Amino acid sequence: MAATGKEKINKKKVFTFAGDHGVVEEGVSAFPQEVTTQMVLNFLAGDAGINALARHAGAEVAIVDMGVAHDFGCLEGLLDRKIGHGTANLANGPAMNREQADQCLDVGIELASTCAKEGVDLVGTGDMGIANTTPSAAIVASFTGLEAALVTFRGTGIDDTALAHKIEVITRSLNINQPNPQDPVDVLAKVGGFEIGGIAGLIIGCAAEGIPVVIDGFISTAGALIASELHPHVRDYLFSAHRSVEIGHTIMLERLGLEPFLDLRMRLGEGTGAALGMTLVEAALCALREIKTFAETGVSEGTDQ
Amino acid sequence: MAATGKEKINKKKVFTFAGDHGVVEEGVSAFPQEVTTQMVLNFLAGDAGINALARHAGAEVAIVDMGVAHDFGCLEGLLDRKIGHGTANLANGPAMNREQADQCLDVGIELASTCAKEGVDLVGTGDMGIANTTPSAAIVASFTGLEAALVTFRGTGIDDTALAHKIEVITRSLNINQPNPQDPVDVLAKVGGFEIGGIAGLIIGCAAEGIPVVIDGFISTAGALIASELHPHVRDYLFSAHRSVEIGHTIMLERLGLEPFLDLRMRLGEGTGAALGMTLVEAALCALREIKTFAETGVSEGTDQ
Repeated sequence: MAATGKEKINKKKVFTFAGDHGVVEEGVSAFPQEVTTQMVLNFLAGDAGINALARHAGAEVAIVDMGVAHDFGCLEGLLDRKIGHGTANLANGPAMNREQADQCLDVGIELASTCAKEGVDLVGTGDMGIANTTPSAAIVASFTGLEAALVTFRGTGIDDTALAHKIEVITRSLNINQPNPQDPVDVLAKVGGFEIGGIAGLIIGCAAEGIPVVIDGFISTAGALIASELHPHVRDYLFSAHRSVEIGHTIMLERLGLEPFLDLRMRLGEGTGAALGMTLVEAALCALREIKTFAETGVSEGTDQ
Repeated sequence: MAATGKEKINKKKVFTFAGDHGVVEEGVSAFPQEVTTQMVLNFLAGDAGINALARHAGAEVAIVDMGVAHDFGCLEGLLDRKIGHGTANLANGPAMNREQADQCLDVGIELASTCAKEGVDLVGTGDMGIANTTPSAAIVASFTGLEAALVTFRGTGIDDTALAHKIEVITRSLNINQPNPQDPVDVLAKVGGFEIGGIAGLIIGCAAEGIPVVIDGFISTAGALIASELHPHVRDYLFSAHRSVEIGHTIMLERLGLEPFLDLRMRLGEGTGAALGMTLVEAALCALREIKTFAETGVSEGTDQ
């Protein structure tokens, strides 16, 4: 059945993909790597930002371990799709090999397929991974050719000295790896991250299933960029939830041709912006479904000016 | 009990104030005056934008006849607070007399008092009144001293010729009436509107009752401006829902010191933006209530950078 634009959303789901990053050893983040693991446990306990805002939006949250540097064992509610114990340090060589990059995409595509079977009709993306603004900035630099300094910002709140160092690390990663912007899987492998690849795959899969996706901030949009460079048509299925404070985000959004719903200076990730954005998508559908036109209600038309 | 910032909103209500405007005879609107009446009936039938978006937000809608140029008789769901059958044409003299302006404020204050009794803990404002971007622009020009051309825009969609005429009409109204910016009731009386006065009174009353108010777009913010020029402390109780496409709106918001949540190029009025904004206020409270801190969950702290 063709979409009328008046559909009711029946089932919303936010996927928060978690992964660790070898580049953390360069000191690019204000937080230690163990926080990724701690936050995954926090998500599972229902106590994090994404839990609160997804509850507000009436959305389910799925937590996917794409490659956290910790063995969780079998934990209820955690989708174990671990590809590695964190990526390698992209400042010294590729973050992952090409096979792993393909695996990331496959995981996302598989999850999208499950969504279609479950009747999920609006998907949100989210991320957790200490240091993951670094690969995200490297990805946008790779595709746009912009210098690292133009796309790199403070992540969870590093100071000027650390920011200068982060820019240097990203520049080094681009020089060493020479990611090929014509080959988005190469970009993902060399300067990406497991959770970013999962997000890219989810977007590709959802577009294939005809499920619209609300993308969160900087890291999710890095995933969307990988997806759209691989398959430009995915853009037709994307909503941008909010504009991140990360300076590279606006550059990503321009490349994707997306305008975000919200600009609330959020910088939390996890899918929190996506959850808020989902409520606005629903509001828009509600307006399309429930507002009668002037013709339907007999209201006088305006003059033709 | 002092507010903790973590309260749960229990009862939300949007007030859509309706009134007509004598200035419509100058041809400042693309729509005929009868549309105000038709839209009030539309609101009562539940078929308009505010009905749809208030349903989405889980908010009640109250429709207040402040001065529509039509006798509705006794209609279920309509709050009859009619002060006149439309204002006088402000291009020829005062829109209303000072007593009527006071009455408008009293109506709003009375409705706020009822909200307090009913346990309404988040209020939204809205408006309906063909031609009411004209008094709204005149109000912001009065307080700021800016020329009409800098605060006047297309309303429901007038063309360049009509816009030039509308600017001329507003300039004439300011010259003839000489509203005194030191006396906000004088501004309301001379170049305001009944529904704008109702909104101003509601804001004053809600602030007195300690009830936060989400203000809608251009016309509602004109009401907020009247209220805050009378009682500057009301600003502490205001949220701006969205930035209207009306160019005078940003000038109003700057004067109020408010930054809107949304910038979706909305131009519908009725309280539609307020309804969307209410869901964001609730999301923020949800985040404050439900997200555990790093200390509470034992997540590692960042380095002190």
